[in-house]
Amino acid sequence: MAVPMLRASAPPGHLGALFHSNVKKPFHVQRLPCSPTELNPVLQAQTDETRSESRLSLSAGTHLIPHPNKVDKGGEDAFLVSGFNGGVIAVADGVSGWAEQNVDPSLFSKELMAHALSFLEDEEVNYNPRILLKEAHAATSSVGSATVVVAMLERDGILRIANVGDCGLRVVRGGQIIFSTSPQEHYFDCPYQLSSEPVGQTYQDAVVSTVEVIEKDTVVMGSDGLFDNVFDHEIVSTLAEHGDILEAAKALADLAREHSMDPSYDSPYSIEARTRGLDVPAWKKALGFKLTGGKLDDITVIVGRVVRPHESSDTRQCY
Amino acid sequence: MAVPMLRASAPPGHLGALFHSNVKKPFHVQRLPCSPTELNPVLQAQTDETRSESRLSLSAGTHLIPHPNKVDKGGEDAFLVSGFNGGVIAVADGVSGWAEQNVDPSLFSKELMAHALSFLEDEEVNYNPRILLKEAHAATSSVGSATVVVAMLERDGILRIANVGDCGLRVVRGGQIIFSTSPQEHYFDCPYQLSSEPVGQTYQDAVVSTVEVIEKDTVVMGSDGLFDNVFDHEIVSTLAEHGDILEAAKALADLAREHSMDPSYDSPYSIEARTRGLDVPAWKKALGFKLTGGKLDDITVIVGRVVRPHESSDTRQCY
Repeated sequence: MAVPMLRASAPPGHLGALFHSNVKKPFHVQRLPCSPTELNPVLQAQTDETRSESRLSLSAGTHLIPHPNKVDKGGEDAFLVSGFNGGVIAVADGVSGWAEQNVDPSLFSKELMAHALSFLEDEEVNYNPRILLKEAHAATSSVGSATVVVAMLERDGILRIANVGDCGLRVVRGGQIIFSTSPQEHYFDCPYQLSSEPVGQTYQDAVVSTVEVIEKDTVVMGSDGLFDNVFDHEIVSTLAEHGDILEAAKALADLAREHSMDPSYDSPYSIEARTRGLDVPAWKKALGFKLTGGKLDDITVIVGRVVRPHESSDTRQCY
Repeated sequence: MAVPMLRASAPPGHLGALFHSNVKKPFHVQRLPCSPTELNPVLQAQTDETRSESRLSLSAGTHLIPHPNKVDKGGEDAFLVSGFNGGVIAVADGVSGWAEQNVDPSLFSKELMAHALSFLEDEEVNYNPRILLKEAHAATSSVGSATVVVAMLERDGILRIANVGDCGLRVVRGGQIIFSTSPQEHYFDCPYQLSSEPVGQTYQDAVVSTVEVIEKDTVVMGSDGLFDNVFDHEIVSTLAEHGDILEAAKALADLAREHSMDPSYDSPYSIEARTRGLDVPAWKKALGFKLTGGKLDDITVIVGRVVRPHESSDTRQCY
């Protein structure tokens, strides 16, 4: 029996109920308190035979909230949404440190997204997100750098993803996250980035992955302003509360902003900072204090729903 | 500037150094304390032109530690390692609750893996991990159920993964995790599972994904006995300490066992349990106590290294 070994951090208390509830359950209808239909309500997964006929596409809602100090110019994030093929979404986050060298960090990310949009139908790109990044990067002449994630849905349900740095993507199905990208970094707060400088990363450094999606799956893409301030379980619960993709994107961005401005919030960012050894001085730790707080940043959220084509839009947007 | 808003959970102290260190850095050689070669030592990423010529394969080391109460029969996990094509690895975890119905939970997982091995070269499977699960599941006659993950490497570096439940897989490159599977569950400790009962999941419920791997990438696959007891950052640090894949697999399994038997260890499992509202009684929480501990379980670890074919083995194993 896979019985968990759990107890209080002080001498153990009575945890019998917990032990019982944590025995790993066989999925056997006589033993479960939930019916099969409750357990698996939306997983009308496609067989490989039907997959090619499914003709899926992505319907997307977006919301961007600039860093409070960068509202005038709209922040340094940029994104694109296109109805090309099954749908394409992408986010680029201009690396803010360039401002110290009197370079506007938003120029690179915005130009990168504009070129990505223009190369979408390019024959050489051939619906390969890695090559899309190659072409868009090569065409970008602004000084600066950006993290970037791009996802391209094929009509048969294959979502193709290329990721450089700490933008991110989640796929949510039936109330749980079934796929996540992983951030890449040189060290804490220095992510992999496409750059105007030859020493930066290139399309070859992108992590390229695919995931098979089905109708009603939700794709959440964002800059690190989302994922540094909002936990995955909050993404799931927010989607459950907001069925409309536009409302969901706004709700996620608002939640990220709220947490980003809360110095007492124990955010994904502050937890990660402590994991890396960044914390309050030892004497404060001894008094029970710890490093907390959200992270002020530009916040970009794209929420895409996998739908049948007649429900999707054919918008082409780049911001 | 992407300045994090961080402070102590009590009135803020002097965190100037922290603020400075957390400004997101442009990847600009003049500004970084590390040289480009230090930053990117192993990422000799392949262009799409060279990918097809790369002929990669997976060299794998394994280690299995049964649950202390199940040593006699070797536990209820099963796994396979095969040199077919670029290499195939898989883990199945027999769902332990079946023992309550006088069913040996190991029979289903072991038969499932044996059939998976026998179907690897099947024409209908055609190197598709979802179809491999379909065929192996259909052929399995034992009563029981199992979570399962399978990964098949193509010679061009495409790792194809199918996952049902809470076994898992990580890809580590250059000291960081670049790809992770996500577990699927009905509720806490009741994972998705292939079953002898019609109400269980099928190959259609598998999350199917791919990730492009390159030479020297490391693939870590395991049952939840690994991932419930060992954090991702520990996987990375353990791989850094043990270059040999056999030693790395043993070290990871040993670490998981050590944590699983430590009632004071704040494991991934106990953190997740608290997130789900399982904790010590309120009066104990008020006294500063919390639920901690590892999770006693079968522990299976497979560590695969992406290599050139002449370095790989052609072993076929199923346990």
